[in-house]
Amino acid sequence: MAPRVARQGLRHVGIEDIRKPLTVLRGGRAITLTATFGVTVDLPSSRKGSDLSRNAEILAEIVDRTVTQPVQSMEWACSEIAKELLVRHPYAQCSRVRVSATHFLLKGISPDRRSMEDYHLSAEAQAMRVNGGPPSLTRWLAAEAVGMTACPCAMSTARDLLLPDYPLLSDPSMATLPIITHNQRNRTRLTFELHEGVEVEADDMIATIEAAQSSPTYAILKRGDEAKVVLTAHRDPKFVEDVMRDLLSSLPKRFPSLPDAVGVLAETWSEESIHKYDVVASHDTTLGELRQNASA
Amino acid sequence: MAPRVARQGLRHVGIEDIRKPLTVLRGGRAITLTATFGVTVDLPSSRKGSDLSRNAEILAEIVDRTVTQPVQSMEWACSEIAKELLVRHPYAQCSRVRVSATHFLLKGISPDRRSMEDYHLSAEAQAMRVNGGPPSLTRWLAAEAVGMTACPCAMSTARDLLLPDYPLLSDPSMATLPIITHNQRNRTRLTFELHEGVEVEADDMIATIEAAQSSPTYAILKRGDEAKVVLTAHRDPKFVEDVMRDLLSSLPKRFPSLPDAVGVLAETWSEESIHKYDVVASHDTTLGELRQNASA
Amino acid sequence: MAPRVARQGLRHVGIEDIRKPLTVLRGGRAITLTATFGVTVDLPSSRKGSDLSRNAEILAEIVDRTVTQPVQSMEWACSEIAKELLVRHPYAQCSRVRVSATHFLLKGISPDRRSMEDYHLSAEAQAMRVNGGPPSLTRWLAAEAVGMTACPCAMSTARDLLLPDYPLLSDPSMATLPIITHNQRNRTRLTFELHEGVEVEADDMIATIEAAQSSPTYAILKRGDEAKVVLTAHRDPKFVEDVMRDLLSSLPKRFPSLPDAVGVLAETWSEESIHKYDVVASHDTTLGELRQNASA
Amino acid sequence: MAPRVARQGLRHVGIEDIRKPLTVLRGGRAITLTATFGVTVDLPSSRKGSDLSRNAEILAEIVDRTVTQPVQSMEWACSEIAKELLVRHPYAQCSRVRVSATHFLLKGISPDRRSMEDYHLSAEAQAMRVNGGPPSLTRWLAAEAVGMTACPCAMSTARDLLLPDYPLLSDPSMATLPIITHNQRNRTRLTFELHEGVEVEADDMIATIEAAQSSPTYAILKRGDEAKVVLTAHRDPKFVEDVMRDLLSSLPKRFPSLPDAVGVLAETWSEESIHKYDVVASHDTTLGELRQNASA
Repeated sequence: MAPRVARQGLRHVGIEDIRKPLTVLRGGRAITLTATFGVTVDLPSSRKGSDLSRNAEILAEIVDRTVTQPVQSMEWACSEIAKELLVRHPYAQCSRVRVSATHFLLKGISPDRRSMEDYHLSAEAQAMRVNGGPPSLTRWLAAEAVGMTACPCAMSTARDLLLPDYPLLSDPSMATLPIITHNQRNRTRLTFELHEGVEVEADDMIATIEAAQSSPTYAILKRGDEAKVVLTAHRDPKFVEDVMRDLLSSLPKRFPSLPDAVGVLAETWSEESIHKYDVVASHDTTLGELRQNASA
Repeated sequence: MAPRVARQGLRHVGIEDIRKPLTVLRGGRAITLTATFGVTVDLPSSRKGSDLSRNAEILAEIVDRTVTQPVQSMEWACSEIAKELLVRHPYAQCSRVRVSATHFLLKGISPDRRSMEDYHLSAEAQAMRVNGGPPSLTRWLAAEAVGMTACPCAMSTARDLLLPDYPLLSDPSMATLPIITHNQRNRTRLTFELHEGVEVEADDMIATIEAAQSSPTYAILKRGDEAKVVLTAHRDPKFVEDVMRDLLSSLPKRFPSLPDAVGVLAETWSEESIHKYDVVASHDTTLGELRQNASA
Repeated sequence: MAPRVARQGLRHVGIEDIRKPLTVLRGGRAITLTATFGVTVDLPSSRKGSDLSRNAEILAEIVDRTVTQPVQSMEWACSEIAKELLVRHPYAQCSRVRVSATHFLLKGISPDRRSMEDYHLSAEAQAMRVNGGPPSLTRWLAAEAVGMTACPCAMSTARDLLLPDYPLLSDPSMATLPIITHNQRNRTRLTFELHEGVEVEADDMIATIEAAQSSPTYAILKRGDEAKVVLTAHRDPKFVEDVMRDLLSSLPKRFPSLPDAVGVLAETWSEESIHKYDVVASHDTTLGELRQNASA
Repeated sequence: MAPRVARQGLRHVGIEDIRKPLTVLRGGRAITLTATFGVTVDLPSSRKGSDLSRNAEILAEIVDRTVTQPVQSMEWACSEIAKELLVRHPYAQCSRVRVSATHFLLKGISPDRRSMEDYHLSAEAQAMRVNGGPPSLTRWLAAEAVGMTACPCAMSTARDLLLPDYPLLSDPSMATLPIITHNQRNRTRLTFELHEGVEVEADDMIATIEAAQSSPTYAILKRGDEAKVVLTAHRDPKFVEDVMRDLLSSLPKRFPSLPDAVGVLAETWSEESIHKYDVVASHDTTLGELRQNASA
């Protein structure tokens, strides 16, 4: 085979969709996640190919050994892998590591109804080689929670539709009665872009998301509990726009110690019950901008 | 390579996950579906391997040519392919063809709100060689529709929860006021097992499914329309059990000309808004049994 | 709401797609799987609805507690849940539990190349109420492994195609030289249907599958290792039909203590490198039949 | 419900995962795609919510009517929808439309082996309001093709491994004999970012991708054909890095009339036969940069 002129450098070369058990310590307990990784480095124009077996070796060394020696977090593992990639690929200038996993928290509508609820976490770390020093790291941590939204618009028009048949609805004592509307499964994701040394707790991100939905949802709901969740959601009906704004505006208070430079991406999907498609909203900003808006 | 003793016959050998454009005639118009096929035949113990290129050739001949010469239906194409498989694999005793595709119907909450709504169709045909005659055919046709369900149980407990704060709810004039509950996207599938010569219209199956849900759903809903869909659903709240029973009990009237021997599989999934998981129900029976139940 | 006449019994009512961490003991170590469950019971015609919150409660009790008290296996958890479903749904005659999860084993082409390789396990348990005794249990355990297949047919025709240009290929010393062919990712699943009291080890099922493919595959392969895997696969080229037959014929020797009544389902998918579609084969039989074939 | 202070503007609000039949004219024939759309607009801080029903109406008007009045291309439909979104959402400054669909081309290893092969197309259009003029449009068109790659590295090490047993391999007449290696399904995507008025033909993009893989793949391959595809692939073994570089370096010649400002994103995934994970590479650049590299 004739040698190719390796003139074109490439941004990312590596391996993807590789699954590994990753054990992290949370609250003193070892928790094993089934994590899916993607790891790449850039390839300079001077080099024909990337040595991909090193990627699999690094994952084996850093991730596989967590089964016996748990690490502090998924995002910590990401950063370690990103830095080690630059060590083992001396020709590369930058590396990227992505990981995602299902995550569980013990939650319930009341203490005796608690069970493991599932969430979704993902993280990314990019390491960039810096002359004469350790690599520069940028990290992203994303948490995703499924909750419930109830539509304020249909609630208002349903009231108008019902009024002629149920005139008592206009009685002052009924002013706050929650009216029927469509409600649905809502999936919301919050992503922070964090510079080195800045840490954030994924469970706090999940709690922040759930507070921005019309209601959290639960695996165990006995007869009376269902009505409570329904009432909670209908007392706080929200468009996807409201979920986004409430989530964004809550961040300054919820994460007071995070610096202004932290990047924020918020995304929400409502799997509409009255349509076959999803209603979506998203926004990206920084904690600094959100703080300015809050004080405006 | 040493020859293997080909002692073990195999039930199914073939190809799967092969995509083709399939053009069918509906209401005088040619409609092109993006269909995904799987085709297999059995392999007798006397033969080492199945000649798989014939499967791809048959699909090319029967399906590809529909682009210029549309056929009557997806299930007709299935049957033709199943029969042709036995012609081209003379060693095989039976063949199986499966196909699935997204299907569109023009629907709306009112004539001026109509748009293309998406459904899902799938079909299967099995041909069995019969001594001295044409092969025996069994076919399955499945239609799937997404609609809405509202929960009757949470509606009842929500009334109890609201009563203390809104005593007017107990006024006789409010007896039929629909009360808040959780509602959600519901996906329901109806499958008929049909012997040769028995035909059924997929669009009638879709209409039957939508009638069994709390409400159909629509792509275009203007302000007032949303409340109407919400009200329709809350006037007819249904558990998945109710969707199943209403669907099954409607079949004798909806399909009077289908014979008793027609097999029926009904399945429903409610993507609960108050849980992160789905609530499901399913049942299999025959039209004959459903007719007996109806007259009991 | 008018009461419905609850005349139609239903085969399956329950919840699906519910994720839980499930901790099992393997080789003295606790391993946590991210498992997805579906649990249903039948609903008699005498009863309007199934009490679904009991399903979520049973999962919480049996599965969530494994985090602190690991159980012996995924299939054991299935059986326990199936039996408990009949206790908590006294109106039900049968229950069904399904679970699936990614599973990891430490493997490598050599001891110093070992890393966590991913496999897929699933299990099902059905419990049937028996008059005056404990319920009757039927269980299914399935293991799935990704490996490699190389095609014997294209290898043979490639030799014919190359011969005119490379006449030395016909030299006797070259008779066993492995020739180029297409090779690809192959996914094979083995399912056993087991009556109560009959146990089987999932890792043995995985080893049996990998022995039936042209070669297992590995996460870590250094330069020379790749050629070894390639050579292993090309020394044992296999059609999907061969994978099936070799898998089926190996079962009597691999599982000598399993009774004849054990049901067997074998399925294989080759994600062809020369086609955009998959080549598939499957067969269902019993261990008894396979033993008869082996001794014929 | 207390009104929210609508202080935070949002980047994207709209609907996603909505399926429609889209009919386009290609080579004088009407072709119907099953297309999945996502459409959003921004939401200014002055406005509480986006009027989402307008999105569904625009899709119905522009896409549904293509069934009787085909349009010129998927990307043309995208642009029309993006512009119309700004007309119907007068408060919005920018709109975004995304669409994807399976696409078919009649191809074969020889004229008598032709059949419909499946590819994947996606497009995006973003419209930005400009003071006193028509909106500014940016568009992306992506084509994706599945083909085959054979690994040059394992081919070289396999030769070394075989040499001791087959010394004739070192005979000069065998120097070009293709040696066994791992080969696999490769998926490669090419995306162009195009300013208004710049058009490109998706089928040319597909041909360009297939030329950069080790070999295209086909649905119909008779006995001898398989060996030809295998030989073609082994005569041109490629790492994902090679696929990327060959694809990128071919663009200046393949698309001479496209301006320098056209953005280029190239991505490739090899579903490795010797690993359970994928090997990937990607790069983003402009046609101008590629032309500079080509002339360097």
